[in-house]
Amino acid sequence: MEIITSITTLRARLQAETSIALVPTMGNLHAGHLSLVRLAQQHTTCTVVSIFVNRLQFLPHEDFDRYPRTAVEDCQLLKEMDVNIVFMPDEKTLYPVPQEFRLTLPAMADTLEGAFRPGFFNGVMTVVLKLFNITQPQVAIFGKKDYQQLQLVRQMVEQLNLPIEIIAGDTIRAEDGLALSSRNRYLDAAERQEASRLAAVLAQIKNNIASGERNFGKLRQQASQTLAAHGWQSNYIAICNQQTLSPAIPDDGHLAILGAARLGQTRLIDNIEFSMPAAE
Amino acid sequence: MEIITSITTLRARLQAETSIALVPTMGNLHAGHLSLVRLAQQHTTCTVVSIFVNRLQFLPHEDFDRYPRTAVEDCQLLKEMDVNIVFMPDEKTLYPVPQEFRLTLPAMADTLEGAFRPGFFNGVMTVVLKLFNITQPQVAIFGKKDYQQLQLVRQMVEQLNLPIEIIAGDTIRAEDGLALSSRNRYLDAAERQEASRLAAVLAQIKNNIASGERNFGKLRQQASQTLAAHGWQSNYIAICNQQTLSPAIPDDGHLAILGAARLGQTRLIDNIEFSMPAAE
Repeated sequence: MEIITSITTLRARLQAETSIALVPTMGNLHAGHLSLVRLAQQHTTCTVVSIFVNRLQFLPHEDFDRYPRTAVEDCQLLKEMDVNIVFMPDEKTLYPVPQEFRLTLPAMADTLEGAFRPGFFNGVMTVVLKLFNITQPQVAIFGKKDYQQLQLVRQMVEQLNLPIEIIAGDTIRAEDGLALSSRNRYLDAAERQEASRLAAVLAQIKNNIASGERNFGKLRQQASQTLAAHGWQSNYIAICNQQTLSPAIPDDGHLAILGAARLGQTRLIDNIEFSMPAAE
Repeated sequence: MEIITSITTLRARLQAETSIALVPTMGNLHAGHLSLVRLAQQHTTCTVVSIFVNRLQFLPHEDFDRYPRTAVEDCQLLKEMDVNIVFMPDEKTLYPVPQEFRLTLPAMADTLEGAFRPGFFNGVMTVVLKLFNITQPQVAIFGKKDYQQLQLVRQMVEQLNLPIEIIAGDTIRAEDGLALSSRNRYLDAAERQEASRLAAVLAQIKNNIASGERNFGKLRQQASQTLAAHGWQSNYIAICNQQTLSPAIPDDGHLAILGAARLGQTRLIDNIEFSMPAAE
């Protein structure tokens, strides 16, 4: 496994490769990331994992400085998986000058996460576009855990005509259902025990819809109330059309149920896909 | 020469090429474009000329509908030059859905042409990025005639890490000095005779600076007055730093002198590069 920090070196190394997969990460790798790496390896012969904590996507008050940085452990894990290349640029490499060329995004980027973290997706999409251009992969892997990001990346690829296939990896969960996330490490023991409730209320919505409930407003309200009763501050519970992420109507066939809530100091997000049973 | 209208076909055709030059045009080709094609052919083995009148870069009141479209003549000219591929997508091919992913640009894009044509560079850079992604050329050729566009493309390539070398082609001029442009055909006979004055006043500024004049404000004012005296409405006459296109200071080594003015109904632009003689 090669660890590469320079763009020029990376490009030279990739010159002869014709089947490259990129797995963009911010490091602090857990089993969720590793499942994305495995997916990459199933699709291509050269897997590049990028590790870069992207300042552009953190709001001023957010956790950029304390975001967990564990490069040594990360590289050890990737080496054990026989990853070909780890790309770890520093900030001066990716942003040698102030990043003035950025992206404007569709309205979808202003909802859900975008509503609570203004500028977040602008930072994400800009760095993803740069990493795409640097690596020029045939395939790129994104987790469904960041569902809105995944759908925006898919739209970007289409609208900017990037010759890249986007493959989505399923969310990996702890035994109690909590979606794996680097931010889980901010939780204390009591919070960790409580944390799986977010996944549980989303699953509850799914089950209720499967059982025939069509009052989405009521389902969302119940979920928020359950979270609030257990000390959560919920940001949103949304039942959306999978592609557009606009509020679902009962006619939508493919739904995504998304939630974001704060438990103590830690903000967690999760989501679950659901396809309506075909009408009879 | 192959004429290709579909993105899929173009990509398949370019699959095996390793040395591709892209010459993006809006068609209505003249000797200026053809000199860019020649430059492309000197640098690579496969030259792609794109022809697409890009609605995104026209303001609502501008000449999108009457912009000259001469595809048959254009293809004839390119065939005589042994161009490999002409890429002529229609609007539905490049913009199958409303283009929501666009670029935000540095402040430079709001000056000069950007000040008089708000949104113009946003449209230009967005389609250039799309054409880059579709063609994935090693080299792309832009004319110095559109100087601000050229500098913005160079900055975009750098800031978005596009692995493309940008090569600039000199402006081609008629015998009387008028820069070739598709919009020259809007000029009537009297206007055509007058039109070379724009190049002449820019050259006059250059000569005056070369002779030691450092009062840039005075030079710009004289140029505007000369144009006005001959029936022009000048938009700007600017003496700029070549890279940043901000107003030049006498210490700047490399200048660009840019002008835009309207003659009757036709808006013309031109520019000239100038390097200060080294101080003694």
